[in-house]
Amino acid sequence: MYTPTQLQEIIENAIDKIEYPAHPARLYEPIRYIMSLGGKRIRPALVLMAADLFGTSIEKAIPAALAIETFHNFTLIHDDIMDNAPLRRGQQSVHEKWGVNNAILSGDVMMVESNKHLSMLDSSVLKDALDTFNTTAQGVCEGQQLDMEFEEREQVGISEYINMIRLKTAVLLGGAMKLGAQVAGASPEEAATLYEFGENIGIAFQLQDDILDVYGDPEKFGKQVGGDIIANKKTLLLLKLKELAEPADLLEMRAQSTNTDFTDKIANMTNLYNKYDIRALASVEMRNYSDKAFEALSALAVPEERKGELLLLSNQLMNREH
Amino acid sequence: MYTPTQLQEIIENAIDKIEYPAHPARLYEPIRYIMSLGGKRIRPALVLMAADLFGTSIEKAIPAALAIETFHNFTLIHDDIMDNAPLRRGQQSVHEKWGVNNAILSGDVMMVESNKHLSMLDSSVLKDALDTFNTTAQGVCEGQQLDMEFEEREQVGISEYINMIRLKTAVLLGGAMKLGAQVAGASPEEAATLYEFGENIGIAFQLQDDILDVYGDPEKFGKQVGGDIIANKKTLLLLKLKELAEPADLLEMRAQSTNTDFTDKIANMTNLYNKYDIRALASVEMRNYSDKAFEALSALAVPEERKGELLLLSNQLMNREH
Repeated sequence: MYTPTQLQEIIENAIDKIEYPAHPARLYEPIRYIMSLGGKRIRPALVLMAADLFGTSIEKAIPAALAIETFHNFTLIHDDIMDNAPLRRGQQSVHEKWGVNNAILSGDVMMVESNKHLSMLDSSVLKDALDTFNTTAQGVCEGQQLDMEFEEREQVGISEYINMIRLKTAVLLGGAMKLGAQVAGASPEEAATLYEFGENIGIAFQLQDDILDVYGDPEKFGKQVGGDIIANKKTLLLLKLKELAEPADLLEMRAQSTNTDFTDKIANMTNLYNKYDIRALASVEMRNYSDKAFEALSALAVPEERKGELLLLSNQLMNREH
Repeated sequence: MYTPTQLQEIIENAIDKIEYPAHPARLYEPIRYIMSLGGKRIRPALVLMAADLFGTSIEKAIPAALAIETFHNFTLIHDDIMDNAPLRRGQQSVHEKWGVNNAILSGDVMMVESNKHLSMLDSSVLKDALDTFNTTAQGVCEGQQLDMEFEEREQVGISEYINMIRLKTAVLLGGAMKLGAQVAGASPEEAATLYEFGENIGIAFQLQDDILDVYGDPEKFGKQVGGDIIANKKTLLLLKLKELAEPADLLEMRAQSTNTDFTDKIANMTNLYNKYDIRALASVEMRNYSDKAFEALSALAVPEERKGELLLLSNQLMNREH
């Protein structure tokens, strides 16, 4: 068993060792840049942990872990263009630094790099791994599309929202688990169970993010607290509030959506959330998904002690303050 | 043996039968749109012809042909964004019709669709096919990067230019041939020979395009004659002229680059090309590459009658007027 810190080290080492071509420099520099911006490396860690569950040497799973992390970072480059985001992990986003065209193209070639990592897997698992990877990648694109569409829509239902975050965020965590299992030669049932675990943890993870945006400790939360409120982002909290608010409070919500005094806006929206106990309701929803995840994991017939690292990571994710 | 028309029909049928998900509609509509805009379908035809050379049922090669054609169309969507091109095959480009963000994302998911087609290949050839496809895709991205960089550079050498079009255009034709050969179970040497054929035909094809831009028959040429001249595009013709022109003509070239009377600009530049016999020089260069291609094909030890369709297509491409 590995600690999350050990896995992180293994992943950072593997990323450091990736060799990209030297030319054209402007095509590959953005890849090195975004891959070195860090982050929690949760997705590749899940690949390795899933393989480790079955007692497989994690070395065998490293190409899959790198494929998943490279793909994830590719989506960050393209999402940042689409969201017009100037910053990524506190640094200039790729399109800010190199321009939009360069960012599009470096993202494209990163997708190829992901596939190259994947193709290094043992041929006995290659077809299954490709299927998992492609289904996952397709889901992530669908999720980003829905996210963009929801921004322009007046009405979004809670189940639609959950489906969007499932696609945009959670299928990649599910796909990471499934890939790790497949590399380790797990049965299709075991791989599906771990997919369940990953997808549900992923939904819970995103719901936790929605909660932290409002209730996170500004000292510990990496992003600006209230960022979603400022952007009128249709999070679980906003959708729940919309469902429950009395007419007068609905009017107040609408008024706040155009409030340009952001400190005031955050305070007023937080008051509304408090009035309807939205934090507790959102936490119940989140626990719902994390419970499903833990049920899936406990149903998996591998020695209990091997599950320790996954449980540790999941609990860290569910109880994090950033 | 199939005629080019028969192959075209087989390819159009296979494209019609591709099933994309219905939702999110805005993600998949652009894919159906661009895939149905037509074009010569040269690349998938090359995949099928290469497989047919070895007497393999072309049915087996269809997933590879679809992967190549889908990838090619994906690059058109992203290239059109980068080049700010309002039209594609005489119709609105995808980003004009659906917006840039949608075009980025639909392109991304097309890349996944290409990989899905590829993963349908027989597992005995899957690894080799992936390697060929990924190397090809990476080359195409590198070529587009160089093309963008050359636009901003004052000096570009002829050999640099040839390398750029090799990457941007020719490796995909080479990759198509190699993929077809691999699917048919050809030896690595045979696959490499066919790659040589495809890459050299691809370079010749692009040089022919450069010539047709100036000397094409406006009635038959699909694009605006003189489009490269108007855009000051560094084609083989421009680079040759720059190499040969006397000081006074170099000054004239520079003056023409800012001439906003496009009819006058095209006429003046064509006069300069004529003065230095650039058409003949470019044709020699083009023949150089098509000769290499035909040499590679004639060295391939398969029954001569099987080579007929490839020779026919290549001759059509080299002698086309559009």
